[in-house]
Amino acid sequence: MSAALTRVALIQMSCEPSTEANLAKAVARVREAAQAGAKLICLPELFRAQYFCQREDHALFSVAEPIPGPSTAALSELVREYSLVVVASLFERRAPGLYHNTAAILDYASDRPDNIAAVYRKMHIPDDPLYYEKFYFTPGDLGFSAQKTSAGPIGTLVCWDQWYPEAARLTALHGAETLFYPTAIGWHPSEKAEFGERQYDAWQTIQRAHAIANGVYVCSVNRVGHEHGDVDHERTLMRGPGDHTPASGLEFWGGSFIADPFGRVLVQASHDKEEILYADLDPAEVETTRQHWPFLRDRRIDAYGGITKRFLD
Amino acid sequence: MSAALTRVALIQMSCEPSTEANLAKAVARVREAAQAGAKLICLPELFRAQYFCQREDHALFSVAEPIPGPSTAALSELVREYSLVVVASLFERRAPGLYHNTAAILDYASDRPDNIAAVYRKMHIPDDPLYYEKFYFTPGDLGFSAQKTSAGPIGTLVCWDQWYPEAARLTALHGAETLFYPTAIGWHPSEKAEFGERQYDAWQTIQRAHAIANGVYVCSVNRVGHEHGDVDHERTLMRGPGDHTPASGLEFWGGSFIADPFGRVLVQASHDKEEILYADLDPAEVETTRQHWPFLRDRRIDAYGGITKRFLD
Repeated sequence: MSAALTRVALIQMSCEPSTEANLAKAVARVREAAQAGAKLICLPELFRAQYFCQREDHALFSVAEPIPGPSTAALSELVREYSLVVVASLFERRAPGLYHNTAAILDYASDRPDNIAAVYRKMHIPDDPLYYEKFYFTPGDLGFSAQKTSAGPIGTLVCWDQWYPEAARLTALHGAETLFYPTAIGWHPSEKAEFGERQYDAWQTIQRAHAIANGVYVCSVNRVGHEHGDVDHERTLMRGPGDHTPASGLEFWGGSFIADPFGRVLVQASHDKEEILYADLDPAEVETTRQHWPFLRDRRIDAYGGITKRFLD
Repeated sequence: MSAALTRVALIQMSCEPSTEANLAKAVARVREAAQAGAKLICLPELFRAQYFCQREDHALFSVAEPIPGPSTAALSELVREYSLVVVASLFERRAPGLYHNTAAILDYASDRPDNIAAVYRKMHIPDDPLYYEKFYFTPGDLGFSAQKTSAGPIGTLVCWDQWYPEAARLTALHGAETLFYPTAIGWHPSEKAEFGERQYDAWQTIQRAHAIANGVYVCSVNRVGHEHGDVDHERTLMRGPGDHTPASGLEFWGGSFIADPFGRVLVQASHDKEEILYADLDPAEVETTRQHWPFLRDRRIDAYGGITKRFLD
């Protein structure tokens, strides 16, 4: 029953104002991870740009790109060269005026010449101070899914999805045994001292719970670094000097981690440094864990219909 | 918007061979908690007996009782005397040959003379070595629900339910703002050294995640103590000397806790002592937390239908 281990790498990185610099950095890090033996590599959410959702600015739609597009083309070269599976979170321009927050799964073994084995469009879209995502992203219309890749059955969700047990459950029911969460989440600097620790803890706790409830590995990869939110993307969007006090913008909290199917944190990254996080996943561990904690056996599917309601008042 | 705080008490207790002694102990502890100002008190799962599900024995059905019955009658006296809400987990004899693992919510303000405001029949029934519950309990047929009590809107689930995000979500969608989990969970002594810590941690983590996902308080109350599983209930069930080595039976791990609506553990009991755990819950905290972490706003109810399937292969 034992199978070969699968080395996973999560690229925790900071993002520069230049989208080209970010792509070059991502390519270099994926190459480094591949050379270290990783077969399944995930980049953070929207790694091509600084987190533009800190403000609502029509000019920033220019950051979007088609899928397939320049980012997937650059990554597919690596995917073929090193026989990889790569999860890449992108700002997708689907049609004029129609944009999504989309994760592409690239697999060297895909039949498609662009190596895109699957795409997932972020289903849950947040809207909170400095996270104005509803302005930019149409909610996903592809539902939840899993993909049998050359590195095993995986599923990807994106950031805000991580707060929804339904998303993890459905992805696992589709057969995913490892869940990826490319993420861009951070602290408001003015809140960090009082609330920072509990925010990170809640974020990690609920994702560990997805691992436990479903008996799957969970790999969550966040960006790191302080972004002021008024950057000049591609030098086309000058906005003046901006408010560069330490209290402005967002401090992305890093802390990427990999949890096993019983929710134990196997590895965890720092809160303030770029790093590549590795773990060797054992596919057999999923079934062993589920045999010992047989939650899937006892689900009361006859009684869950209310989940599709907004509220049961 | 501020409302009075609600003092909750969880009765972490060990259970004796005598069901009468356990009722007397429960009554004494509920009284103590009431005198300390608690208005909402929860007893552990099946507190009337040692955990009989360690073996499959037809004679042990004699431990069951109707609802209303002797336990609810004894507790309703206290409920009226101290103006309480009490959650009592009982082995329900519903009809000859039909038994449930049932939690009764007693409320002094109930219109009914027996003070039973609601009953919940455990929906998810485990079956694992020394937890042979499928032998004893018919799975619940009342679904998930919430109850508006004199101490606020609450919902109760029972033990194995705690591993199911669906159960917590549905109870919250029905309006519960505090979830109770009467529980009987422990370590196999032979596994404790290697797996004990991670088992407790997973158990607490997934329940904290229910608090986070739903923006509700979670109150989980477990029994404590080592039970060998061959006790002589009511002195009618002699089974010989039994195997009383330290490795037999179950060591119930206590560790009862109360988490706030963002999953922070407010108070936590020891692993090896009887105690009453108190916390003062702020009803306003539920709405404040949900405003800051608006997960209920963004649920994709159009895409959750697959939750009612066994698997999506």
